[in-house]
Amino acid sequence: MKVAKKSRGSFTMPGEAGYEELSLTLAEKWGADVIRDCDGTKLSPRLLEAGMDVYSTICIIREHNEFASTNPQFQQQTFLESERVVSTSKTIEIPLLSRYFSGQFEVNEASLPYWQVLDRTTGDEIFASSWQYNATTKSVTIEGCIPFHQYSVNFLAFRIWEEINMYNHVTNNWKSEPLRQLDPRYPEVQNYLSSYLVRWCEEHPETDVVRFTSLFYNFVWIWGSDERNRNLFTDWASYDFTVSPLALDQFEAQYGYRLTGEDFINKGNRNPSHVTWNKRMMDYLWFTNAFVCSYAKELVDIVHSYGKKAYVFYDDSWVGMEPQSEAFQTIGFDGIIKCVFSGFEVRLCNAVPGSLTHELRLHPYLFPVGLGGAPTFKEGGNPALDAQKYWVNVRRAMLRAPIDRIGLGGYLHLTEGFPDFVETIADIADQFRTIKELHQAAKVYTASLKIGIITRWGKLRTWTCGGHYHEHPDLDLINILESLSGLPYTVEFLNFDEVARDPLDSFDVLLNAGFQNSSYSGGDAWQRDDVVTSLTQWVWKGGTFLGINAPSSLNNSFKMAHVLGVDYDDGRRLCHGQWEYERVDGSLPKISLRAKEGIYLVDGSTEVLHVEDALPVLTERKFGKGKGIYLSEYRYSPENTFAIRSILEQNLAAEPLYASDNPHVDCAYYPEAQVLLLANGSESEEDVRIMTEKGKLYEVLEGFSLKVLDLSAYL
Amino acid sequence: MKVAKKSRGSFTMPGEAGYEELSLTLAEKWGADVIRDCDGTKLSPRLLEAGMDVYSTICIIREHNEFASTNPQFQQQTFLESERVVSTSKTIEIPLLSRYFSGQFEVNEASLPYWQVLDRTTGDEIFASSWQYNATTKSVTIEGCIPFHQYSVNFLAFRIWEEINMYNHVTNNWKSEPLRQLDPRYPEVQNYLSSYLVRWCEEHPETDVVRFTSLFYNFVWIWGSDERNRNLFTDWASYDFTVSPLALDQFEAQYGYRLTGEDFINKGNRNPSHVTWNKRMMDYLWFTNAFVCSYAKELVDIVHSYGKKAYVFYDDSWVGMEPQSEAFQTIGFDGIIKCVFSGFEVRLCNAVPGSLTHELRLHPYLFPVGLGGAPTFKEGGNPALDAQKYWVNVRRAMLRAPIDRIGLGGYLHLTEGFPDFVETIADIADQFRTIKELHQAAKVYTASLKIGIITRWGKLRTWTCGGHYHEHPDLDLINILESLSGLPYTVEFLNFDEVARDPLDSFDVLLNAGFQNSSYSGGDAWQRDDVVTSLTQWVWKGGTFLGINAPSSLNNSFKMAHVLGVDYDDGRRLCHGQWEYERVDGSLPKISLRAKEGIYLVDGSTEVLHVEDALPVLTERKFGKGKGIYLSEYRYSPENTFAIRSILEQNLAAEPLYASDNPHVDCAYYPEAQVLLLANGSESEEDVRIMTEKGKLYEVLEGFSLKVLDLSAYL
Repeated sequence: MKVAKKSRGSFTMPGEAGYEELSLTLAEKWGADVIRDCDGTKLSPRLLEAGMDVYSTICIIREHNEFASTNPQFQQQTFLESERVVSTSKTIEIPLLSRYFSGQFEVNEASLPYWQVLDRTTGDEIFASSWQYNATTKSVTIEGCIPFHQYSVNFLAFRIWEEINMYNHVTNNWKSEPLRQLDPRYPEVQNYLSSYLVRWCEEHPETDVVRFTSLFYNFVWIWGSDERNRNLFTDWASYDFTVSPLALDQFEAQYGYRLTGEDFINKGNRNPSHVTWNKRMMDYLWFTNAFVCSYAKELVDIVHSYGKKAYVFYDDSWVGMEPQSEAFQTIGFDGIIKCVFSGFEVRLCNAVPGSLTHELRLHPYLFPVGLGGAPTFKEGGNPALDAQKYWVNVRRAMLRAPIDRIGLGGYLHLTEGFPDFVETIADIADQFRTIKELHQAAKVYTASLKIGIITRWGKLRTWTCGGHYHEHPDLDLINILESLSGLPYTVEFLNFDEVARDPLDSFDVLLNAGFQNSSYSGGDAWQRDDVVTSLTQWVWKGGTFLGINAPSSLNNSFKMAHVLGVDYDDGRRLCHGQWEYERVDGSLPKISLRAKEGIYLVDGSTEVLHVEDALPVLTERKFGKGKGIYLSEYRYSPENTFAIRSILEQNLAAEPLYASDNPHVDCAYYPEAQVLLLANGSESEEDVRIMTEKGKLYEVLEGFSLKVLDLSAYL
Repeated sequence: MKVAKKSRGSFTMPGEAGYEELSLTLAEKWGADVIRDCDGTKLSPRLLEAGMDVYSTICIIREHNEFASTNPQFQQQTFLESERVVSTSKTIEIPLLSRYFSGQFEVNEASLPYWQVLDRTTGDEIFASSWQYNATTKSVTIEGCIPFHQYSVNFLAFRIWEEINMYNHVTNNWKSEPLRQLDPRYPEVQNYLSSYLVRWCEEHPETDVVRFTSLFYNFVWIWGSDERNRNLFTDWASYDFTVSPLALDQFEAQYGYRLTGEDFINKGNRNPSHVTWNKRMMDYLWFTNAFVCSYAKELVDIVHSYGKKAYVFYDDSWVGMEPQSEAFQTIGFDGIIKCVFSGFEVRLCNAVPGSLTHELRLHPYLFPVGLGGAPTFKEGGNPALDAQKYWVNVRRAMLRAPIDRIGLGGYLHLTEGFPDFVETIADIADQFRTIKELHQAAKVYTASLKIGIITRWGKLRTWTCGGHYHEHPDLDLINILESLSGLPYTVEFLNFDEVARDPLDSFDVLLNAGFQNSSYSGGDAWQRDDVVTSLTQWVWKGGTFLGINAPSSLNNSFKMAHVLGVDYDDGRRLCHGQWEYERVDGSLPKISLRAKEGIYLVDGSTEVLHVEDALPVLTERKFGKGKGIYLSEYRYSPENTFAIRSILEQNLAAEPLYASDNPHVDCAYYPEAQVLLLANGSESEEDVRIMTEKGKLYEVLEGFSLKVLDLSAYL
């Protein structure tokens, strides 16, 4: 059942010069009120004058190859570690770039004072007098090596190919000139870019919204020299690509101490955002955030001075922007656009504070191939089905959290030959406008359950673990977030200072999930007695502490084991007896949890609710008026979401209001409008029973469908 | 095919009063030259006078209940940790014994100065003025607790039931008076026991050999109060049961610092011998070893003064004896007896230095039930088959390492009704005498391959990981030892000081195996640069470093990764690319290795020889003239033994001499006698090809059989 056609609007479509008729037909079909260009497409006068608002994309730090060529010292940089060489003789030579893709990096030969040569066996730094750089061979020679130690060099390299452009060239066989990228940390670059933006605004009077893609520093993406390991290091939220000699100098001036290459290289592990950061890296984050937002404000002020709005894309070169930071609020962006595959990304976009427009870019993009190179808009592709599947993922979350706009990107002409895709998008646009309208009219019904998620990042990384779901499907927290994104609870994110300091009384459930030393489980934050004591007290008074995988784990032991009732054995307990248990036969819905080897019951009072491979995978333990619940892992699925609801809601009513009894059907109630939305996330027909204040409803939904029920019409 | 009947001797049988005819018949049948009593049996005059030597068992520290009752302060003790209590009020009361089996422990109320009350949340010790012991409730009250911290008490408890006796009572339903045990650390106990032994010797003129079972301190075996977790902590080689106030005082006087209860409790983990010990616990080991051996010498001197020999049982109360220690050599034992299930235990016995008799106690014991309560000498049991299966396990190792005697223990009358068992033992005794005779005549042929096994224990725990194979079948090293026990190599055990200090040139292979922080893999010994450097240099010059599971692992990373070519990712490498590989299709025999999650290739030069669950489980990397080999785990089986032979021997000849081509058939060559022994470890007929200096042999062996081939008769 299709949702009834709504008035147009709230929909952004890509236009394409040469396909004016198609563009205008689809604009009408989809109710588009905005037309945009894309990386690789242009708008023609006829499209610019079609009565729609115009978004123009601008990636401010690239498309300046001439300036970059004459001022190569202003290109962006990163620290790299050379290969490690074992000293089989007193003098060794270490090639610097052997591990890295030569298209991406060049040694910054003027930055030697910022380099380090390290004895990797001892961890000691080698005196500068003992090594020298050879510009001809691009290598470092070390004298007086200790026999059979390992040595490597931390050095600064220019990044000579903007990474998104590099990716498109290599993956999509682009042939245009590789684009370089400038570092606006340098005042000369700021002057140049600000002038450029002024000129650009003057040359684009038809543009209503300047869509920044995004700001200055891309997420880290280090390519290797060997095709067997091309992606050496990628993280959506690390700061590796923001560094430069000037940044290091300014940091020292501001923070009173100096960062080294090793702060970034970190024994070769670098600092992915999934692993706990130390104080030094956190200082550097705030330092960079302050700069990024301050210069972004200058650019946005220019845009505003031309009467245009400034939106920002919440991907690619977003690093340093930190939309949850206070500094971000000072920029003055009018909108933020997030590309989404999943529900948690809807919440991530919605959660960006401020009175800015929250817009989503739906998948699939109008490209021939999609994820992992699978066909989309080409033979063998089924873009209509792809669109439906992505849509039902994100729709669940939209029922809970209002979004202002949706839209598409890519090459519009590719839709030719896929009429079912065109119809699907029309329906999705109408569904979206229906949901948006309900949110505008009424606050959605929310169960009286407040969940706090404890991580090292806290609010700063609200609703995200970095990157898309498919990039890190093994992170327990991303899976929990995906489940929660469509559930009717209040969710907040806390860091460990807040756990120790703030009153926790308002929370019903506090959750800690992830592998040990991850920034999600918390790592050495669990050394803090005040954190453990605060949580212990809160549970004793009635809270539920929900731990997943390695919650509160420090040195292979759970600091909250006395509450959780389980702990982890890394071998040290090999000689200790194991508590026998009988599985408690509860009324829990089906849940799939993989066993975690090493989990053991700390004593006889822990109840085992679920067992897999003879190991407890779901346990519960009463502690004072509260309880500890442990899950060995968590992976998103409709069934697991249904089960986690049951686990989370055990203190609520037995049959909660406005809650679906079918894992595949989500529901949301808008009390003031007296409208109930039912959303079938599965391809097949599903039925559902819902308890409402007017009694129990029974409904049947077609595959993928959204159903609008006006409860005021019911008895 | 049975081995031809050999002359009698080298066989110890249990006699049983009331079954004199049976005893003498079986003595003839088995060629026994020694008759012994057992725990629970006595010998009658007719047996004592039957012309056989007589062993008499004596467990010196028990059977003194009267003395123990009047001098309870001299009973043996141990540190226990009370349950942990969360302070939900300012004053809390902690019951001391709630977790423990009341039959085993009593609070030592005179030892309060040796107790500790700990804030387990902070790790701080609580001032003695803040807590007091209540003898009525057997609990400690703490005042002024910090809210919601955890507290517990480390206290000394008397062990009021000798643990082996306790086990037999509970398991075999014994009804005799529970036996207490005395601590010979106290001079008063020494005086008492020495006098007792003098008296005993005078009262047992017929005894030729006093068989000590064993010395003074049992392996730790702490029982719990709850039947759901009765065995709280058991380890064959920990020192938990040796402690007392006097021991602590003497330790302080000797070593200049004081040990605390927490040294033993160790955050509740205690100090199993499988996990690395710190310097303090090692000091305590040597301190205890010195005392145990010194007082054991006094007892042995008494035995010798009566013209008797003194043998010791290498199990039960063996703790502190350390047969590989220098102090052990000073005792003057005439023999050592090891009960064996497996090949490595044969090597363990054989490796005890000194000119003493090395004797084995074979399985099954003549008891109604055996391992895990399975029937043996009762309906449903098949003791002949059991005996064969244990025998072929130990025979492999006996082909390599000479043993002086074998024997049985238990109730002889149980053999009635099992004539095939009687025949099997007769055959085993003959096989044993054949093998022993060959060893006496000629040194067995050994391949020119020397393997060093690097552990924290080094030589001190030669050929053992503590306990029997079936107790810890998951330890990689015990599995490797079981394989090696029957292979024709030279095997030595090294500690980390020796790795760093001694020349390693004589070794072909150095092996490091086990889980991280185990005493086998080495734990924080891998912080030592000199260890890493020494091994790196040795491999570079041509050595093979073989790592299993978590070799050289420290903080979840392999310190020898540059040699092994693999490392372990605990999540910190989540954003790093993985090296693609193609499995090298080598000629390796079939091997079963379970994948270890987190193993990754450090670069592109590591060869992957075997893959399981899409993870590399066997890899090889050239490093200089040597190589690193990694195995994800190792479990003993004939097939895996065959495969590990191939891995170890890759630097040897393609078709080595005197090596079986059938995993189930072991062979050993005695050059001076020109005799080749072939031993079929499987129940079924097997054929085998063996390259000898006289050409290739082809032989067929019946199930379980031993074949003696006189090669001098061949062309």
